[in-house]
Amino acid sequence: MKPYAEMTREELASLKEQLIIQYKEYQGKGLSLNMARGKPCIEQLDLSMGMMDSLSSDADMTCEDGTDCRNYGVLDGIREAKELIGDMMENPIDNIIIYGNSSLNVMYDTISRSMTHGVMGNTPWCKLDKVKFLCPVPGYDRHFAITEYFGIEMINVPMTPTGPDMDMVEELVSSDEAIKGIWCVPKYSNPQGISYSDETVRRFARLKPAAKDFRIYWDNAYGVHHLYDHDQDHLIEILAECKRAGNPDLVYKFASTSKISFPGSGIAALATSQNNLEDIKKQLQIQTIGHDKVNQLRHVRFFKDIHGMVEHMRKHADILRPKFETVIQILDEELGGLGIGEWTRPKGGYFISFDSMDGCAKRIVAACKKAGVVMTGAGATYPYGKDPHDSNIRIAPTYPSIEDLRTAMHIFVLCVKLASIDKLLEEA
Amino acid sequence: MKPYAEMTREELASLKEQLIIQYKEYQGKGLSLNMARGKPCIEQLDLSMGMMDSLSSDADMTCEDGTDCRNYGVLDGIREAKELIGDMMENPIDNIIIYGNSSLNVMYDTISRSMTHGVMGNTPWCKLDKVKFLCPVPGYDRHFAITEYFGIEMINVPMTPTGPDMDMVEELVSSDEAIKGIWCVPKYSNPQGISYSDETVRRFARLKPAAKDFRIYWDNAYGVHHLYDHDQDHLIEILAECKRAGNPDLVYKFASTSKISFPGSGIAALATSQNNLEDIKKQLQIQTIGHDKVNQLRHVRFFKDIHGMVEHMRKHADILRPKFETVIQILDEELGGLGIGEWTRPKGGYFISFDSMDGCAKRIVAACKKAGVVMTGAGATYPYGKDPHDSNIRIAPTYPSIEDLRTAMHIFVLCVKLASIDKLLEEA
Repeated sequence: MKPYAEMTREELASLKEQLIIQYKEYQGKGLSLNMARGKPCIEQLDLSMGMMDSLSSDADMTCEDGTDCRNYGVLDGIREAKELIGDMMENPIDNIIIYGNSSLNVMYDTISRSMTHGVMGNTPWCKLDKVKFLCPVPGYDRHFAITEYFGIEMINVPMTPTGPDMDMVEELVSSDEAIKGIWCVPKYSNPQGISYSDETVRRFARLKPAAKDFRIYWDNAYGVHHLYDHDQDHLIEILAECKRAGNPDLVYKFASTSKISFPGSGIAALATSQNNLEDIKKQLQIQTIGHDKVNQLRHVRFFKDIHGMVEHMRKHADILRPKFETVIQILDEELGGLGIGEWTRPKGGYFISFDSMDGCAKRIVAACKKAGVVMTGAGATYPYGKDPHDSNIRIAPTYPSIEDLRTAMHIFVLCVKLASIDKLLEEA
Repeated sequence: MKPYAEMTREELASLKEQLIIQYKEYQGKGLSLNMARGKPCIEQLDLSMGMMDSLSSDADMTCEDGTDCRNYGVLDGIREAKELIGDMMENPIDNIIIYGNSSLNVMYDTISRSMTHGVMGNTPWCKLDKVKFLCPVPGYDRHFAITEYFGIEMINVPMTPTGPDMDMVEELVSSDEAIKGIWCVPKYSNPQGISYSDETVRRFARLKPAAKDFRIYWDNAYGVHHLYDHDQDHLIEILAECKRAGNPDLVYKFASTSKISFPGSGIAALATSQNNLEDIKKQLQIQTIGHDKVNQLRHVRFFKDIHGMVEHMRKHADILRPKFETVIQILDEELGGLGIGEWTRPKGGYFISFDSMDGCAKRIVAACKKAGVVMTGAGATYPYGKDPHDSNIRIAPTYPSIEDLRTAMHIFVLCVKLASIDKLLEEA
């Protein structure tokens, strides 16, 4: 098949007729498939069911330091959980706070605290006329929802294959005091699966922000979520790099076990400098007496240590790898060489990113929906839901079975083709 | 023994000499006893260990409505948890949100949201010159810490045996638009163990606040925490009473299972009107995808229903009743008729409140500490830690063994006597 752009109007029209027949066939099947959210599948959830037995009614509920996990106390997490999560995040336990079940909640609270009380003695953001955040795009919709909710102006920064456009980041951060943060998913990014290059991480650590209270919001959601045992992306650890660069307080790093143990019933954590930790704990001790230590202990008893967690993640990979490969194979086979779309080939994480021709994403997603396939909404990967090119679509291959995934992807490529033909016919 | 006030200087001085000998004896023992915080004791924690088996590795993790509890989703809690907690709180499930492990965190977030986004469309509090809260005193230090942290001015309202001074509450709330809330622990209050009378609850429901965004912060922390099976305090349910009074949106009601299952590993909840719930969910959906549903299911499977929970609370009562009775007995025997202190006789909750002669609380607590008995800090039961009479001391009898409690209380009454004599000698 030749590139669509090289086809005549007649060729396109004739192709469209054939494709519509296929599309209508799928429509007739009354399918209900969902590739919208990055949800683990049932087989993945089953991997952690052993955790339900790791604390039984006759279990010793005492921490290594003698603390009874069942009672009040321990604001920042039990030591053994800090050690496990510290190894996972590649940070010393002294830099870690263990939270509740949701890293999103930790990020929200971080912004909320900055609004009402400011960052390390600086003016609370609610007292400022304008607060801005940089948003590498495409990115994670729930990040953007937090900053939008707090009335923070979001500035798009294009992603490149090595991370955000660092020329633009450096220029903006060093010149505008209203810019207080940047949202980053540095490893197997959402939605592209891009991991920041060494140079990108180094440039982040060396930023010279105009605002003293500028922080990098480093959401390392997929730090240990590899698809392959050897072919893994590796990131320079940002806290250590910031410390080396003389910018120890520059970063808040977030992570959780949501996609390791159970979404909603895992443990979340923050890693940051001593100064930031002190600042945060002043607030945290007002907010709570402590998070769920029993669940922290449950995780530690189940995984035992970081090697146990890594072995556990290999089982996740064995389930997810064929799903990612199925999606990419169908995209390659069906759309390769047609010049109507581009897609990423992540080595980990939860998403594949697809870019259609400009102005086609919304119709593709709408057409998918009419054929029973729910995709993440077009535009969701951009601040305010506005994709200026209307081209980016996030594909979440983890939840459906491979069979459903195959069907859904065949419908998806069909919708891509149809939308592209319509676009070309309109333009011609 | 006659009242101290009727003793001569000589009698007081001679008594002091005897008491100091006793005090020094205790000091020599190198004791380390703690009656500072309302912590369940180990025997109480053991009561809930069966919960560790209520979800095992072969458990069905599906909710009644088919939701897989292990995966993402369900912002406001699973239906069966709402039913259990609804029965506990005496509210319909449609008025309930199930949260994470800490009702304190829910209260903090409620204030924080009001600061940044306001209440039901009203001006965010951070945009106002002045925000004030009414604080019935003595009260719960962690409530006061939240309002202090957000720079909210706290106004003391004296507690009476039937609840806060409602004449003062009505007068202030109806005349000052800056007053946005009042902290209440309506049942077995912290620290006095007072339950609000029917009239008090009715007057709360009929308040006519000057501020549209005034809310009653109804922390029903001890709703099912009775000491006696029949001799229980019963409260008019506030949401229903507000609805009847034509003030459906007037109250946020908080509760948790922290002192039913495990402190730090229980489930917390909020009950309020539909309008308030809608307002809150707008924020909650930005903050998190959902709370720990596995822990919600674990609680439901363990308690089964409200009757199961009530039976469970009888076991707590059997452990706590003798502790409360021990404290009160020693106070009665040692201080009765001396005119140097008053104490409450709660039928539930976690505390007994002691009022010394004015100006004695700090020295009593300090003297206790020197003899190895840690009490809640004097002043802690007042906003800003400032007890204007320096007289209130919170006694938390739940954690120590009865033997330790007896020793600690003997030291306590000794310190009360000594401080009172010193005070009387100074004044004479």
